[in-house]
Amino acid sequence: MRNFKLVLCYDGTRYRGWQKQGNTDNTIQAKLEKILSLMLSEPVEVAGSGRTDAGVHAREQTCSFRSNTECSCEVLLHELRKHLPEDIGALSLEEAPARFHARLSCRGKTYVYRLALNDAPHVFDRNQVARWELPCEPDLTLMKCAALLLEGEHDFTSFTSNKHMKKSPVRTISQIRIEEKGEELFFSLTGDGFLYNMVRILVGTLLEVGIGRRSPEEMPRILQGKDRSLSGFTAPAKGLMLWEEYY
Amino acid sequence: MRNFKLVLCYDGTRYRGWQKQGNTDNTIQAKLEKILSLMLSEPVEVAGSGRTDAGVHAREQTCSFRSNTECSCEVLLHELRKHLPEDIGALSLEEAPARFHARLSCRGKTYVYRLALNDAPHVFDRNQVARWELPCEPDLTLMKCAALLLEGEHDFTSFTSNKHMKKSPVRTISQIRIEEKGEELFFSLTGDGFLYNMVRILVGTLLEVGIGRRSPEEMPRILQGKDRSLSGFTAPAKGLMLWEEYY
Repeated sequence: MRNFKLVLCYDGTRYRGWQKQGNTDNTIQAKLEKILSLMLSEPVEVAGSGRTDAGVHAREQTCSFRSNTECSCEVLLHELRKHLPEDIGALSLEEAPARFHARLSCRGKTYVYRLALNDAPHVFDRNQVARWELPCEPDLTLMKCAALLLEGEHDFTSFTSNKHMKKSPVRTISQIRIEEKGEELFFSLTGDGFLYNMVRILVGTLLEVGIGRRSPEEMPRILQGKDRSLSGFTAPAKGLMLWEEYY
Repeated sequence: MRNFKLVLCYDGTRYRGWQKQGNTDNTIQAKLEKILSLMLSEPVEVAGSGRTDAGVHAREQTCSFRSNTECSCEVLLHELRKHLPEDIGALSLEEAPARFHARLSCRGKTYVYRLALNDAPHVFDRNQVARWELPCEPDLTLMKCAALLLEGEHDFTSFTSNKHMKKSPVRTISQIRIEEKGEELFFSLTGDGFLYNMVRILVGTLLEVGIGRRSPEEMPRILQGKDRSLSGFTAPAKGLMLWEEYY
């Protein structure tokens, strides 16, 4: 059987996230498996690099699948593009070594979170920029201090909504960048992996630091407490985009 | 009465163009007049710089209106932004001299038309890039030759769908630029004004030249014929954006 590496992008607005769930097919994975299975006339299972939440977007997300097809990658890519809805795009398709697996082979990811800082319009990227009212302009320096204390290898139990985690909650965040770009706040988080809701809770917590509701010094205590109730709110999905993946 | 200059941007996908039409309020003008009238507690009439077709977008479009309000422009702008739907944005609002009128004072405009050249995905700008199958890659040089023959002051009757024009069909196109940018074709047309459907028919005609269905030399004959049936097809609205206006 041949093994394929497919890179997608998508606007997650209409979808219930990456992972298929029971009998609803309103997820990226279910949509893709249905199209590929019909196209290739065989049941196709697609492995994603990870699971994005409902409403989260991907600038690039890698997935892998196996098939007996004898078609060239070029033909398959054109065929797939014909069948995908307008809000899911196939960026590239190539044959991968037999042991390649989108999730297991992934070494790391960068997520980007965009938040509008004022009421200036975001008409053309309105689905990709989060917008809610903050009591004051967030303090960049305070947020950067807190971010530094979150970088590195930690148990991120306090930063996930998954209460029944079977696997290790230890992850390494190699970098958190926070910038003001024009009239928006731009968070960029790079790590070897992220737990369920982790990026959104990190952004929510950093913003609470930015508006003075928490101090940066709390970060180590939150991490050590291993308790979701210690950290901040979950920032809305809309502003989050899976930006880049490393293999 | 005070006179105001308001600059908008909008994603035209959901709308039947700029100009209000009878009792449908699904136009930018109708939406705006309704919001401003409620906000200012007086009937407000808004003059636009021109009329965009259904489905056409604006990166910036100026309009003007008069009101007795005593509010500052800053307060009015914030209030307006609260009431506008997500696909219409208010970029700026300022008080204008009494004789300022968005249409009459407008000296010129630039429209941009974007066409996808292959099946590569345009997920995040899918509403702003036109997409249809061309029999071959359009020839840029041929299109540029034809464009040169369309620049200048001409009677553009052959390039409008408006059969019952009351006003002069003479317009001056100062520049038509055509570029390949990545995987798309990018038309940029600047002129003192454009007739109904004119930009879309110009783009359609230029594309017919690009794919060899017409020769650039036909352009003067088409202009002289003053007959819509002589020119090319009307390119879809989706790819068209009012880019800039000159006052």
